[in-house]
Amino acid sequence: MKGKKILVISAHAADYVWRAGGTIAKYLKHGGEVKVAVLSYGVRGESNDLWNSEGATAESVKEIRSQETRAAAKILGLSDIDFWDLDDYPMPLDAGHEDRMVRVIRALQPDIIISHDKFDVLNPDHNRVSDFALRCSIMSNSNGVRIEGTKTTKQMRLFGFEPHQTELSGYVPGSFIDITEVYEQKVQAMKCFKAQGHLIEYYTQRAFMRGNHAQRISGNKAYKYAESFANFFPVVGDELY
Amino acid sequence: MKGKKILVISAHAADYVWRAGGTIAKYLKHGGEVKVAVLSYGVRGESNDLWNSEGATAESVKEIRSQETRAAAKILGLSDIDFWDLDDYPMPLDAGHEDRMVRVIRALQPDIIISHDKFDVLNPDHNRVSDFALRCSIMSNSNGVRIEGTKTTKQMRLFGFEPHQTELSGYVPGSFIDITEVYEQKVQAMKCFKAQGHLIEYYTQRAFMRGNHAQRISGNKAYKYAESFANFFPVVGDELY
Amino acid sequence: MKGKKILVISAHAADYVWRAGGTIAKYLKHGGEVKVAVLSYGVRGESNDLWNSEGATAESVKEIRSQETRAAAKILGLSDIDFWDLDDYPMPLDAGHEDRMVRVIRALQPDIIISHDKFDVLNPDHNRVSDFALRCSIMSNSNGVRIEGTKTTKQMRLFGFEPHQTELSGYVPGSFIDITEVYEQKVQAMKCFKAQGHLIEYYTQRAFMRGNHAQRISGNKAYKYAESFANFFPVVGDELY
Amino acid sequence: MKGKKILVISAHAADYVWRAGGTIAKYLKHGGEVKVAVLSYGVRGESNDLWNSEGATAESVKEIRSQETRAAAKILGLSDIDFWDLDDYPMPLDAGHEDRMVRVIRALQPDIIISHDKFDVLNPDHNRVSDFALRCSIMSNSNGVRIEGTKTTKQMRLFGFEPHQTELSGYVPGSFIDITEVYEQKVQAMKCFKAQGHLIEYYTQRAFMRGNHAQRISGNKAYKYAESFANFFPVVGDELY
Amino acid sequence: MKGKKILVISAHAADYVWRAGGTIAKYLKHGGEVKVAVLSYGVRGESNDLWNSEGATAESVKEIRSQETRAAAKILGLSDIDFWDLDDYPMPLDAGHEDRMVRVIRALQPDIIISHDKFDVLNPDHNRVSDFALRCSIMSNSNGVRIEGTKTTKQMRLFGFEPHQTELSGYVPGSFIDITEVYEQKVQAMKCFKAQGHLIEYYTQRAFMRGNHAQRISGNKAYKYAESFANFFPVVGDELY
Amino acid sequence: MKGKKILVISAHAADYVWRAGGTIAKYLKHGGEVKVAVLSYGVRGESNDLWNSEGATAESVKEIRSQETRAAAKILGLSDIDFWDLDDYPMPLDAGHEDRMVRVIRALQPDIIISHDKFDVLNPDHNRVSDFALRCSIMSNSNGVRIEGTKTTKQMRLFGFEPHQTELSGYVPGSFIDITEVYEQKVQAMKCFKAQGHLIEYYTQRAFMRGNHAQRISGNKAYKYAESFANFFPVVGDELY
Repeated sequence: MKGKKILVISAHAADYVWRAGGTIAKYLKHGGEVKVAVLSYGVRGESNDLWNSEGATAESVKEIRSQETRAAAKILGLSDIDFWDLDDYPMPLDAGHEDRMVRVIRALQPDIIISHDKFDVLNPDHNRVSDFALRCSIMSNSNGVRIEGTKTTKQMRLFGFEPHQTELSGYVPGSFIDITEVYEQKVQAMKCFKAQGHLIEYYTQRAFMRGNHAQRISGNKAYKYAESFANFFPVVGDELY
Repeated sequence: MKGKKILVISAHAADYVWRAGGTIAKYLKHGGEVKVAVLSYGVRGESNDLWNSEGATAESVKEIRSQETRAAAKILGLSDIDFWDLDDYPMPLDAGHEDRMVRVIRALQPDIIISHDKFDVLNPDHNRVSDFALRCSIMSNSNGVRIEGTKTTKQMRLFGFEPHQTELSGYVPGSFIDITEVYEQKVQAMKCFKAQGHLIEYYTQRAFMRGNHAQRISGNKAYKYAESFANFFPVVGDELY
Repeated sequence: MKGKKILVISAHAADYVWRAGGTIAKYLKHGGEVKVAVLSYGVRGESNDLWNSEGATAESVKEIRSQETRAAAKILGLSDIDFWDLDDYPMPLDAGHEDRMVRVIRALQPDIIISHDKFDVLNPDHNRVSDFALRCSIMSNSNGVRIEGTKTTKQMRLFGFEPHQTELSGYVPGSFIDITEVYEQKVQAMKCFKAQGHLIEYYTQRAFMRGNHAQRISGNKAYKYAESFANFFPVVGDELY
Repeated sequence: MKGKKILVISAHAADYVWRAGGTIAKYLKHGGEVKVAVLSYGVRGESNDLWNSEGATAESVKEIRSQETRAAAKILGLSDIDFWDLDDYPMPLDAGHEDRMVRVIRALQPDIIISHDKFDVLNPDHNRVSDFALRCSIMSNSNGVRIEGTKTTKQMRLFGFEPHQTELSGYVPGSFIDITEVYEQKVQAMKCFKAQGHLIEYYTQRAFMRGNHAQRISGNKAYKYAESFANFFPVVGDELY
Repeated sequence: MKGKKILVISAHAADYVWRAGGTIAKYLKHGGEVKVAVLSYGVRGESNDLWNSEGATAESVKEIRSQETRAAAKILGLSDIDFWDLDDYPMPLDAGHEDRMVRVIRALQPDIIISHDKFDVLNPDHNRVSDFALRCSIMSNSNGVRIEGTKTTKQMRLFGFEPHQTELSGYVPGSFIDITEVYEQKVQAMKCFKAQGHLIEYYTQRAFMRGNHAQRISGNKAYKYAESFANFFPVVGDELY
Repeated sequence: MKGKKILVISAHAADYVWRAGGTIAKYLKHGGEVKVAVLSYGVRGESNDLWNSEGATAESVKEIRSQETRAAAKILGLSDIDFWDLDDYPMPLDAGHEDRMVRVIRALQPDIIISHDKFDVLNPDHNRVSDFALRCSIMSNSNGVRIEGTKTTKQMRLFGFEPHQTELSGYVPGSFIDITEVYEQKVQAMKCFKAQGHLIEYYTQRAFMRGNHAQRISGNKAYKYAESFANFFPVVGDELY
């Protein structure tokens, strides 16, 4: 993991924590470099409970979401978050945003991009961001996409987050990452999102279940907790993993 | 690759050469251990041209196939082949064969099993062997499958060969192995099958195409020739590959 | 059915009659509440024969379509139709239309939304409306989508119309509704669309075939005519249906 | 649920408890009739931990499995279990077994059959039993399958159990059953299988996750725990569920 | 069509009439050669209504089925039917049957084989015969499958019948054959099966619907009635059809 | 092929040569009429190597691409190319472009449209153009899409190009066209694209592989080189191909 550079593209403020918080913490712990682009605060689509507070406004919700996600990032050991502050539900993503994302990708030259998987039946923003991330990664690789001061990338690996209801979204795990050693960090990071207690319980249990799956298909009993990701591309290299 | 143990289960005498010869040679070169089980000589289903020789008999065809595949194995550096000498077209596989294969698997305790992928539209034997290999690997893992003198395995990785017409067979590559350094060995091994010149050309070109694909999705221009395999299970471990 | 509220979102003026006319009539007959939003009159995409009349203009075609669909609605017992009068072929659907549809959904608070299924190989408008309906239903559920004077919904059931050529569109029926008791009403309602005799015959026969299917998989011989729908979500509740 | 008759066909002794224990208890509680056919004790494929006891034999393992599953059944309120005591791993199912199962089905005349879903990547017995259950249900419906003393059935509903690793097995939930009111019974029943503590935790958490899913797609917050099933056939009837 | 040789492999006595009667009649009318192999009389699985006659026995049912299918064949202009008289529900197909079918295929040297499509959710015999037909066609092509007095074939085209409930069986039409000119013959042939009035109506309407589909995707209004088939292989040749 | 009219819609300047050059040359040779619409010069997405020349600008790259593609067209015998000169990576396609394409389609009244297949995992422009081509073909057929001076078409056949990495893009060949007689022309045409030597080798080998596939599934040994295409619609007509 040492020296590997990862870009995480998160539609809303907490998506990267629920779905990849353990993997992020693990890479950071072992010398990886991780940058997260948070495209929106999820004020409209990911803050249901916050709006139940009396007097809640878009600004007050955004402020809370911002504080929560910064606190979570800190616990994960993550110092590099880029808040785009776009609208959500729906999330508009045009050629200007593509240009901006290509700049981000080319500046980091990531080995890996993690974003939303191809389809989430319950979240139209996730679908747009998934397509946006793939599109921008391909544009970054293209030598003809000329942007002053940027350097063409080579094709990086792409991975997709688990959606909330996996089977209804056609999600198939391609990679399990053992997060046992950073599990407590992930749990603490999730707890920053105070108004979403049900999701904390949900993703705690999911880590256990994915750990069970990882154990079962590897025979390795040290895997207690895991996160899974969809593989956008085949594995390429010297060995069969 | 060093120390990794691989079992290759090949329906007919030459399947393992066309589809995995480079990967076998590479693992052997780098200290891996590879055993191949050849279930049949492919006398009925994989020896079309040999039958065109005047006076060909099942015995004469089998003899040629045996010599060819031994010669190919030698070039790949492979010393451990287990010839089952079953009938083919159709290939009968019953509980006795399952018992035998479980013994083979448990004796080797492989990290990896490579066999035919789930579906080959043009070869009914391949389909049976694919299912047989998966079934036997799972039985090997089961502590309750008691066979005197064997030791239960833990779940090994399973990979599927490319079928001849991939898209018609629903084949999706999950792993590309760079075989550039052993490419010449594979070509020489393929040339042992004298009556199948068209397949030699075919699999030579396929190695080039898979090399091109590997290059394109990794950005690594050193990948000139590759073999691809289907992944039966997700990747499990510490890193995203 | 009593007390159940249904919103039908129909891309063109007659879609709701061909594909859900029987189901609408049945719910209305048994005390359900049904509202239909007709997004366009289908002047460009669904009025081929009307344009063959001498002197036909967009206005004259629209007028006929409007009269026909109102007559059909009356026969079905349907009093609540909302005509959006959008263009069709192509149908533009932007954030303004999303806002409008969220208001419609929140005003009705439907138990069920019926609209076009995910893919129709022969009709690009249907595909856009399918995605639009799903998107808007999810936005309606989100507490953070703040629209003055509206009340957040809970997740309603979504069902998709049969497309014209089902197998080419990947359509899989998830629910069959027995429309035997309202079959005559549906036939009469279809006959309002005078210029589309071939569709009347087509959907008459389809009702028979779906009735045959319903009979076959339930063993209930009382099912003579049926309509089928795709299920966007699993069935949830106390019983296995 | 009152008066509904359900036949559960379970490959191994505990499958019906992990995957459908809550649904069975619920139907029984509300006046349903449930019969379970347990095709094998799972001595070879489902008793890994029991074989770790010193001196374990096929007979001793079978005896424990039998006691455990009878205890679990009692907790669920289930009095009608039919033990076929077949071998497992592999499970042989021939024309004689088909005849026997057709007799079972025709004797009960079930409204619903629940068995294994179409594919379980990690369990070859489950796959055979799934196909066997579907095949026998269709033969039971056929008037020409003449068996003395039996009466042809009409087509019953078929549902498939969740496999252990759902996404790798192509499983898609078609129905969620709320098991909140019988959840404690299911937990107690699972605890009868003393040597399988990890599965108890696993299926406890799965009940929570399926409850969360059921809640999310219905808006009904009373759903705390659920079981899910695959639908072999569409829903047929008067209403959209 | 002139000079083209077609082998139709029909699981039960009437399958070839419902699903391919029009296509058979058309090829015969235009100088094609058609042979039908009827593997069973369908006494158990396809004769529900005949068993309702008082005193029906396997022999009496078989006799009626035999007469009906011969009458239908005559109307279609078909003189070459080969009755295998196998059991059905279930239909046993072993290596001996493979040998027999390879002889049939090699004797005829067909350009086209039509049989059941890959999956029929409601008929286990159809699934077995589909796999059997594909398997035997591949064996016939293999030079190493030595059968005295037979001559190896070249790969023929394979097509699959429509199953009764297409979408539930994953059926996708690959070819529509216009049967307008022989439609009356097909209707008369179907009427030979006196006890199956509901199927006559069903397949009459299906011919109309497939005619409508054929018209719609070709723009050719002369197509009034059609049959559709699944394509096992891509089209190969000089032109795009 | 004589008299058949084909419209090829190519996202970038060279797509039509790599993927359909042989088929175009063959139709032209045998009296077909072929028109190609090249939507962009591929300056940003398809000209990686050209940008490596010192001093390259969008204009200089475009100029080279224009000359290369005109030279290639000439070799193929193609005189009718329509350059739209749109931007690429991303390619904007709005209602104005739909109107323009409908005019092109209606002016030519093609029997066949060939464009990009439904999904190309590595090229977002290809995906947009695929959807655009399908959409415009359907609008062209619709009598209500009134454009002064145009005449409604009847439904033409649609075929999709092979994407570069077929299996990752879900591509399934539906038609193989034997290009043996025009193979040399295609090779020469490809050589016009001087900066893309690796693609020339790649598509040369692909022609060989597709020839091998065509041979294998037809038994016709005269097929040495082939191109394959996806079928958007079933084959419709008098014969089974």
